[in-house]
Amino acid sequence: MHLKDVKAPADLKGLSYEELNDLAAQIREELVSTVAQRGGHLASNLGVVELTMALHRVFDLPRDKIVFDVGHQSYVHKLLTGRYALFHTLRSFGGLSGFPKRGESEYDVFETGHSSTAISAALGLARARDYKGEKHSVIALVGDGALTGGMCYEALNDAGNASTKLIVILNDNEMSIAPNVGALSRHLTDIRASKGWTSAKKKVKSGLNNIPIIGKPVYNLINWAKDAVKPLLVAEDGFFTALGFHYFGPIDGHDLKSMERTLQLAREFDGPAVIHVMTRKGYGYDKAEERPEIFHGTPPFYVETGWRKQKSSLPSFGKTMALELADMAREDQRIVTITAAMPGGTGLSAFQKEFPDRMIDVGIAEEHAVTMAAGMAAGGMKPYFAVYATFFQRSYDQMIHDVCMQKLPVTFMLDRAGLVGEDGATHHGVYDLAAMLPVPNLTVLAPRDLGELRAMVRWTQHYDAPCAIRYGRKSIDLGEKYPYASFTPGKWEMLEDGTDCVLLAMGSMVAEALETRDELNKLGIDAAVVNCSTVKPLDEDMLRSLADKPIITMEEHMLTGGFGSAVSAFCVDEELPGPVLSFGIADTFVQHGRRDQLMKYLGLEPEQMARRISHVLASKRGKKHE
Amino acid sequence: MHLKDVKAPADLKGLSYEELNDLAAQIREELVSTVAQRGGHLASNLGVVELTMALHRVFDLPRDKIVFDVGHQSYVHKLLTGRYALFHTLRSFGGLSGFPKRGESEYDVFETGHSSTAISAALGLARARDYKGEKHSVIALVGDGALTGGMCYEALNDAGNASTKLIVILNDNEMSIAPNVGALSRHLTDIRASKGWTSAKKKVKSGLNNIPIIGKPVYNLINWAKDAVKPLLVAEDGFFTALGFHYFGPIDGHDLKSMERTLQLAREFDGPAVIHVMTRKGYGYDKAEERPEIFHGTPPFYVETGWRKQKSSLPSFGKTMALELADMAREDQRIVTITAAMPGGTGLSAFQKEFPDRMIDVGIAEEHAVTMAAGMAAGGMKPYFAVYATFFQRSYDQMIHDVCMQKLPVTFMLDRAGLVGEDGATHHGVYDLAAMLPVPNLTVLAPRDLGELRAMVRWTQHYDAPCAIRYGRKSIDLGEKYPYASFTPGKWEMLEDGTDCVLLAMGSMVAEALETRDELNKLGIDAAVVNCSTVKPLDEDMLRSLADKPIITMEEHMLTGGFGSAVSAFCVDEELPGPVLSFGIADTFVQHGRRDQLMKYLGLEPEQMARRISHVLASKRGKKHE
Repeated sequence: MHLKDVKAPADLKGLSYEELNDLAAQIREELVSTVAQRGGHLASNLGVVELTMALHRVFDLPRDKIVFDVGHQSYVHKLLTGRYALFHTLRSFGGLSGFPKRGESEYDVFETGHSSTAISAALGLARARDYKGEKHSVIALVGDGALTGGMCYEALNDAGNASTKLIVILNDNEMSIAPNVGALSRHLTDIRASKGWTSAKKKVKSGLNNIPIIGKPVYNLINWAKDAVKPLLVAEDGFFTALGFHYFGPIDGHDLKSMERTLQLAREFDGPAVIHVMTRKGYGYDKAEERPEIFHGTPPFYVETGWRKQKSSLPSFGKTMALELADMAREDQRIVTITAAMPGGTGLSAFQKEFPDRMIDVGIAEEHAVTMAAGMAAGGMKPYFAVYATFFQRSYDQMIHDVCMQKLPVTFMLDRAGLVGEDGATHHGVYDLAAMLPVPNLTVLAPRDLGELRAMVRWTQHYDAPCAIRYGRKSIDLGEKYPYASFTPGKWEMLEDGTDCVLLAMGSMVAEALETRDELNKLGIDAAVVNCSTVKPLDEDMLRSLADKPIITMEEHMLTGGFGSAVSAFCVDEELPGPVLSFGIADTFVQHGRRDQLMKYLGLEPEQMARRISHVLASKRGKKHE
Repeated sequence: MHLKDVKAPADLKGLSYEELNDLAAQIREELVSTVAQRGGHLASNLGVVELTMALHRVFDLPRDKIVFDVGHQSYVHKLLTGRYALFHTLRSFGGLSGFPKRGESEYDVFETGHSSTAISAALGLARARDYKGEKHSVIALVGDGALTGGMCYEALNDAGNASTKLIVILNDNEMSIAPNVGALSRHLTDIRASKGWTSAKKKVKSGLNNIPIIGKPVYNLINWAKDAVKPLLVAEDGFFTALGFHYFGPIDGHDLKSMERTLQLAREFDGPAVIHVMTRKGYGYDKAEERPEIFHGTPPFYVETGWRKQKSSLPSFGKTMALELADMAREDQRIVTITAAMPGGTGLSAFQKEFPDRMIDVGIAEEHAVTMAAGMAAGGMKPYFAVYATFFQRSYDQMIHDVCMQKLPVTFMLDRAGLVGEDGATHHGVYDLAAMLPVPNLTVLAPRDLGELRAMVRWTQHYDAPCAIRYGRKSIDLGEKYPYASFTPGKWEMLEDGTDCVLLAMGSMVAEALETRDELNKLGIDAAVVNCSTVKPLDEDMLRSLADKPIITMEEHMLTGGFGSAVSAFCVDEELPGPVLSFGIADTFVQHGRRDQLMKYLGLEPEQMARRISHVLASKRGKKHE
């Protein structure tokens, strides 16, 4: 059977294991070739091919419900639920999302993107089922990395107590994004060891399967012959049992037959059950198996070599921050860095290289990360927590209650602030300013480029209070025309003077404002450009001095509660004329696509902005002359 | 030794157990008499008298550090660290806080208020100690209720992995505020049972100790004679052991001697350890022991009877909401309610009474609560999550990511929005609007009084999208002059017309605005009063129609990112004159005190506001006439 002919999960049910094995190979080929073109999450999807097939065969979708934790491992599920024809549009503007989307398919019952939400959502679905007197199964598919998140525990604790029928599949690939951390991870290792699940055994598998993606993985067939029936039930594991769950496992996540048997057992079990499934990230594509971190989320790459297609010529904001911190840390023993399972993505691995003992990876635990940082600061250290702006949403209460209220010198390095592009709605970092600006004691900064970021990081060293620095995914260097030396908080920078209007731009929008200025020039308008790199406090003196010209604000953030909104409120208070225009993100969830496509969609391209500004200035002049 | 002579923990070290026992009785007497006068947290403090004394005797404070989870059980600690003389000012404006405060004492090393933060903070302090090469002990004192919060688990997982020397004291009183929920709670019960710790045994204790507070508890002395040495070490408990902790317990938390021995052992243990201590909430004051929920947080009461001194004549917003929901739930099977361990405080117990199976208590797990609610909504139910505004800060990411992004019909009932009074900075609910207003798909409401709340709740029944309703601790009924019938979202209500200016008031400030109107009348100013009960979306038509008069906004929320800020931004966009004044909370953490004292401190008393308005209007008129 060809993959293109699979229109629904039911189509898998009549197939032989030989046909299924062939289908698994086709799925892997499709995953590798599409992600090589489009970028995306590869290693995790390669790891759950058989697991997803087993779920689709044993359960009756969409009557039974599957919730995918973090959701980026749902590609196989998409391919098997009528979305093969559209799969080449993955993560592109207007195309398939890289995450489950209720609008895409009735088989996507709950949307995910952030980690550790699936058990909570599944428990909600299970309770709804019980209230309505329905009988179907509800399954949460959760990685071992996600289990380091406190929400999982809150949900397990509630579910174990409720005794509701619910299946949690622990997809244990011994790492989430980076190698996994935390005591529970060791506990899982102990379980594996006690069941004879050794690394040696895995190496054999890996050797057997070391064939190019174009061939068919033969491992499964051999494995079935070898041990057809594994001991499926383990009475006690300690952790899950203490939380009231029945524990099944561990089982081989690439052995379709034995997984199906366990799923059938769990399906009939009347209460909360956890199935511990062992999978290999990147399974079936040797490049990804060897370096699963690299192929967790990847830009487009060459299939033969695994090399990335484009490399940015600029270092990322994150790496730049990390190297600057490392430079400071050489002489300042107080400096420590913290990541919530993202040493690579945040750039901190560059710091870790030099100071392995001074980078703490707490797991996917953003809440704990912030309060732990507050504890370290109370103990005399100078902690830097680097985190994606969207995941920092998890630390909102801790930022207020544990850091700012005690005025402790914790610095938040908010990466991926603004539009992140292909990851879409769940990942855009566009709410952080609204959350931070009302909080007393917090200084909020946004650098215009790499040079200013370095100066800001350097400045924080002797700043004895909470501070947040936000920067985007796209690296920016304004070049020799706008060199950067030192940073003074609260003072904005007039980059270009102009007589007709003033563009007040923040962070990533400074570069866009400079381009907008060029576009305005073409329209005969002479605009000043100000780099508003301190968002809290505003540069009130500068704002007052600009009162005689029309001002326009620009930010990569929601319009409500952001930079422009703060400027408007200040102008109203001071009886200054407010901004004639505010550019930012309107009151809507922005979907996925390349950043430039999204910016255009939002009217934030320099040429678009120039036209709107020109229009508004003309209408103002018209009004004046009336 | 008299309690007043205890100036520092060291003063306890030379005392005999008889003297200590006497001191414990004095402490209990002081706790009961002060809380009877001032209100506060009584039952939890009565439960930790011996535990706190043991900690002060075994450890070397302030060199060794204790972090109190939630912090409201730190009264005994305050009495023993030089704050006896000020204890009568507890929770009063300018007096001692009801929570640990770094500014109050060097013995308060980390501030708390919200639950489940202590292990994270303590781990941070322990890591700082290790980096600095210091040697002291760090102790986190955590209730069994707090353990249902995911942060605790994140911290245990990190600490267990780090193998840092850290002592977690699990203060197990078999309930946090309300009787405890969750699977872990059952696990703890199993441990107790397996160690022969039965309810029967507890009843004997209780009987022995059933003497008035004025006498001295004799139980401890008898107990010491009975079994001087208990088995202190239990190798395996399952849960904590899986997380890499060494487990000691359970031990009797009212047996000073045996606690001291265990603490001494734990102090020498080189790694993360948990000590499971059994205490009784309310111990030593029979009224509190019998009804610990009532005496968890209590207003002033009569010691003899335990009766509350003042009873409000109005029902609370929470109870009113719950009764309205119950009324709807009779015919609408989709309605379910959710609490995070606060059925009493949120008023939901009134709903639970009629529909015990349709109120879900998830434990102190606000993150899980919201995503679980989203799952229920996705499954066709209509969930209402009632939560204090300040604790809702924990659900910020889930509100955006799991509810609003999927536009699921979850309703958030935000209680204690605004200033909460005596609980102070950690508990004021003054950031919620800033967090919610930028989020797409969310409708945000604030009723002017009980009647409007009922109409709003009724309206949500057939509203198929996310909605939040915020209301304060103080109950309000505007009375017969302003009766309430039905609610139309997005439409503001002109309560009083006026020619000189317009007061745009939200929620609790509508009542204040009506009083301000009376004060303005005395000053010869005729003010209109508008009830702005929909905060998102704003009533744009009404705002445009008011453009010819000076407008003034009023809210019990931070000025930045709140209602006034939204009005200002709208006015700037529409080129309308913005508010001439915005009343709200300035950029500072407001401390504790009676609400009326805090309002006065912030310049939000009607008479204060009237004077400022009069002043501003006069200066406007002056400018016009220039």
